[in-house]
Amino acid sequence: MTTPLASKIAREIGTPCVVIDMDRVEANIARIQAACDKAGVANRPHIKTHKSPLLAKLQIAAGARGITCQKLGEAEVMVDAGIDDILISYNLIGEEKMARLGALQARADITVAADNEVVIAGLPQAAALAGRSLNVVVECDTGRKRAGVETPAEAIQLARAIAASPGLSFAGFMLYPTETGWPDAQRFFDDALAGVRAHGLDAMIVSTGGSPNLKNLGQLKGATEHRPGTYIYNDRMQVAAGVASWDDCALNVYATVVSRAGPDRGILDAGSKTLTSDPGGGLDGFGLILDHPEAKIARFAEEHGFLDLSRSNTRPNVGDVLRIVPNHVCVVVNMVDEVVIVRGDEILGMLPVAARGKLR
Amino acid sequence: MTTPLASKIAREIGTPCVVIDMDRVEANIARIQAACDKAGVANRPHIKTHKSPLLAKLQIAAGARGITCQKLGEAEVMVDAGIDDILISYNLIGEEKMARLGALQARADITVAADNEVVIAGLPQAAALAGRSLNVVVECDTGRKRAGVETPAEAIQLARAIAASPGLSFAGFMLYPTETGWPDAQRFFDDALAGVRAHGLDAMIVSTGGSPNLKNLGQLKGATEHRPGTYIYNDRMQVAAGVASWDDCALNVYATVVSRAGPDRGILDAGSKTLTSDPGGGLDGFGLILDHPEAKIARFAEEHGFLDLSRSNTRPNVGDVLRIVPNHVCVVVNMVDEVVIVRGDEILGMLPVAARGKLR
Repeated sequence: MTTPLASKIAREIGTPCVVIDMDRVEANIARIQAACDKAGVANRPHIKTHKSPLLAKLQIAAGARGITCQKLGEAEVMVDAGIDDILISYNLIGEEKMARLGALQARADITVAADNEVVIAGLPQAAALAGRSLNVVVECDTGRKRAGVETPAEAIQLARAIAASPGLSFAGFMLYPTETGWPDAQRFFDDALAGVRAHGLDAMIVSTGGSPNLKNLGQLKGATEHRPGTYIYNDRMQVAAGVASWDDCALNVYATVVSRAGPDRGILDAGSKTLTSDPGGGLDGFGLILDHPEAKIARFAEEHGFLDLSRSNTRPNVGDVLRIVPNHVCVVVNMVDEVVIVRGDEILGMLPVAARGKLR
Repeated sequence: MTTPLASKIAREIGTPCVVIDMDRVEANIARIQAACDKAGVANRPHIKTHKSPLLAKLQIAAGARGITCQKLGEAEVMVDAGIDDILISYNLIGEEKMARLGALQARADITVAADNEVVIAGLPQAAALAGRSLNVVVECDTGRKRAGVETPAEAIQLARAIAASPGLSFAGFMLYPTETGWPDAQRFFDDALAGVRAHGLDAMIVSTGGSPNLKNLGQLKGATEHRPGTYIYNDRMQVAAGVASWDDCALNVYATVVSRAGPDRGILDAGSKTLTSDPGGGLDGFGLILDHPEAKIARFAEEHGFLDLSRSNTRPNVGDVLRIVPNHVCVVVNMVDEVVIVRGDEILGMLPVAARGKLR
């Protein structure tokens, strides 16, 4: 079974492709902005999900304070497009990056994160190049064991090191609590805040993160802003986390069934090069096929999606074009140079993923 | 510990980046071409690994008969660069693809694969557009349960359907046996060949595939060519399969340690957006760190590689630049717009991954 829009997309654009429903994008932007407004925290969306200046500007127009980028190269694309308030939520290290950060900071308001002394020792070079002071937030780990200092004492020490560095300004704290870790994050933050205040500093920015954490919005007393990314498109992980419904999923991968060599199996023309091997935190299979929800995308070659149809009552035929909600949209968007923009059943055009593949 | 080359690359290019050693590339090309020559099968390298016309031309200059592409978009890049003998080892379906295939076939010798009647019914449209006959091989499944007909009887039936279709020419069989499945593949092929001969057809092309199958080169009596891809760079999977040594691995990801927030853990600036979540067929972790082989890349966020250092005697410091052999090079190459080319300790320049991201 192929929907009329899927037929049209296959004919005019071809499969596999990534399709974005703008009605849903706009609804997602409006809903989460309203939730941030209601919770009294600013919205600073993470653009890693869409990697598009056009969509970042829609988020800002709807009320977002600025944006978050994970990499300098993403921020460069966004500043080139005229966006001027960016948090780079990442430890930046090395001469090459300091030269670029300095050039960027000369053109826009950039805040960066740091969780160690090596990072802090390098940043003054960028500030000197920019000729203006650079805001730095201390990244705190509150259970995720990713980046971030593990204790308030370390956070206080780094805040003091930032404040004592030429050209750097201590701006506050960046947290990314686990979904159940907000009480711990509160204790960590309260201690860290008291500590920096005891040294005459204060936290202008207290930034929390994550779309799955939208259900915890406003839970951290003292938070000034939140950095949700995935909410603009949503995916299986967000539905599993209870922060989106299937109707909120604005991104589908369209793929064609190209082989049905056995009764219980089939092959999609979308493999790991399109849908990626991201397990989505332990979901069953690699995407939900809206047209055949009992079918499982069981495994991948780069250009082959292996369908397990053993549980399916209705089985697709060769040539059918199917719509898939991926496990994790952010990584899927990064696979393509452009996405197809639709509204209802109308194809509006192609949108470049302008900050795709910016590793550095 | 950071090698002098790693320091230079971090300073001049920045991390993370994908680095190719041309001495090793040339040695890999020469070694496998010699193995094909010795086995008496033509080499038709799969360019999905490097996605670069320049490297495809090196393979052809070394003796390869032509190339293999998985997608039409890859073949278009290669034909634009002047390569004129291409097997597209994939079921192509739909008007949009037939228009492009016809245009391509008018400019170069293209052979395509088919494993079902729907594909065969569409291909005459491309041949008609090209104004010349199109070679079609029947894809046979010999245990991998990917694409491919499951029985010789089906293969014979499709061969006859191809031969009876306007503008199509039955050209032979395409197989991709499992590493241990070559005796089965021989039986399948012998039966299929006898069957098509009984109907007055013959197999001009008998193509086997896979770099892990290089150890089986020449095992299929009647094979005319082999389609290895990964051998040009090699990776952890190839070493695990016993067809390459660590010294044959020509591709390294260079990544910087950006955080060491706990004694047993660290964070690399290369996450799933660089190294990909490809499990490499069940390998432990997501890459071998040459500088710290006991360290494990345990899991990923998009821009964070989570290091488990609990088994490491020597532990990297923040700022160290590490060299990583990925699980699977083909998917890593597809993440980047360009790779860094080095020879020994000299940086030669950047090579575009010209056919990157060609999903269609």
